[in-house]
Amino acid sequence: MDKYAIIVAGGKGLRMGGDLPKQFLPLGGKPVLMRTLEVFRRYDAALRLIVVLPREQQPLWERLREEHRFEIGHLVTDGGETRFHSVRNGLALAKGPGLVGVHDGVRPFVDIDVIGRCYDEAAKHRAAVPVVEVVETLRHLRGDASQTVDRADYRMVQTPQVFDLDLLKRAYGQAYSPRFTDDASVVEALGEVPIRLVPGNRENIKITTPFDLKVGNTLL
Amino acid sequence: MDKYAIIVAGGKGLRMGGDLPKQFLPLGGKPVLMRTLEVFRRYDAALRLIVVLPREQQPLWERLREEHRFEIGHLVTDGGETRFHSVRNGLALAKGPGLVGVHDGVRPFVDIDVIGRCYDEAAKHRAAVPVVEVVETLRHLRGDASQTVDRADYRMVQTPQVFDLDLLKRAYGQAYSPRFTDDASVVEALGEVPIRLVPGNRENIKITTPFDLKVGNTLL
Repeated sequence: MDKYAIIVAGGKGLRMGGDLPKQFLPLGGKPVLMRTLEVFRRYDAALRLIVVLPREQQPLWERLREEHRFEIGHLVTDGGETRFHSVRNGLALAKGPGLVGVHDGVRPFVDIDVIGRCYDEAAKHRAAVPVVEVVETLRHLRGDASQTVDRADYRMVQTPQVFDLDLLKRAYGQAYSPRFTDDASVVEALGEVPIRLVPGNRENIKITTPFDLKVGNTLL
Repeated sequence: MDKYAIIVAGGKGLRMGGDLPKQFLPLGGKPVLMRTLEVFRRYDAALRLIVVLPREQQPLWERLREEHRFEIGHLVTDGGETRFHSVRNGLALAKGPGLVGVHDGVRPFVDIDVIGRCYDEAAKHRAAVPVVEVVETLRHLRGDASQTVDRADYRMVQTPQVFDLDLLKRAYGQAYSPRFTDDASVVEALGEVPIRLVPGNRENIKITTPFDLKVGNTLL
């Protein structure tokens, strides 16, 4: 049974203000995306890595790989119009049966144990995502009004989101909906299996703003 | 019309692992609580500051104030069994009519503009809290199952939460409920006025774990 990880790096750098796409921003002197790939390689030397990257960024990625003598093997495929389309492009390169994780390229601080728990749980139950508790009070908006809800009833979802490969392929065979905000929501729309939740690690943040980059450099 | 800020510092340091209560942890060489008080003093030189602190921590606070030659004037009152009881103790020192903000002592990175917006909005509408968007996918738990919800329908609530003083006193006259997770939820239980939401600043984190402290030192 093969194990894949699709690393989605579709960012165009808009939220960072700069010209450099956020997955290429230097974290301790090394592009964020490389650090993310390194964690997955450390988790499993045999994991098949698929990087989804906008076509226009691929020559820059090639240059960065040479510059940093980056030797972790991976396939590269084109990013799509939305995250949904990007993941679908990545899935086209994965052959089953097996497991596939989908991970944000700008989450280099995922814990190896968290990756392991997600793949293990998906091997048993077909669909697993890492979650952390909500640490702030949460309010639910309804039109002009809003109301406190019990934050203990909610979880924040991170990645990697890991699935049975055949299940995820069928899920991504559905028509795109703007309600698909992560892979679990796409699988959920199939209505076949419940999503299992496993404990994530709080440091597994997305690097998308200058503030995140500062936090990231602290975490290193 | 008087303006008060109740700074609640009830932490016993348990979550940090160490012996030092988290409000006294050094951030750039200065206890977190002092940095929090400094921001409120910069917002308004006439603001009346009330610090709520467990009685057994008050001698240490006294020593720290001398050591750091900390000169921002404030009243000190005893912490209670829960945050609810602590805030009620603080409110007993505030005389109306006026406005009162309640703020976590371990949130030193609140933006002065955010404080200003909360007091201004509360002056007009009696109840205002700062909120930020939810940046991760959110799942709602229901028994063993869970479901993706639209994160755009939710906000994370921070402090200061600012109210008409008479309104907040009446709210805190109610019997304690474990459902009171913040001041807005206490006011909401009165059923008198809707809570107004104003934009907060994302850096306004609670310093409650070693990770937060690292992030805090980066933010300085």
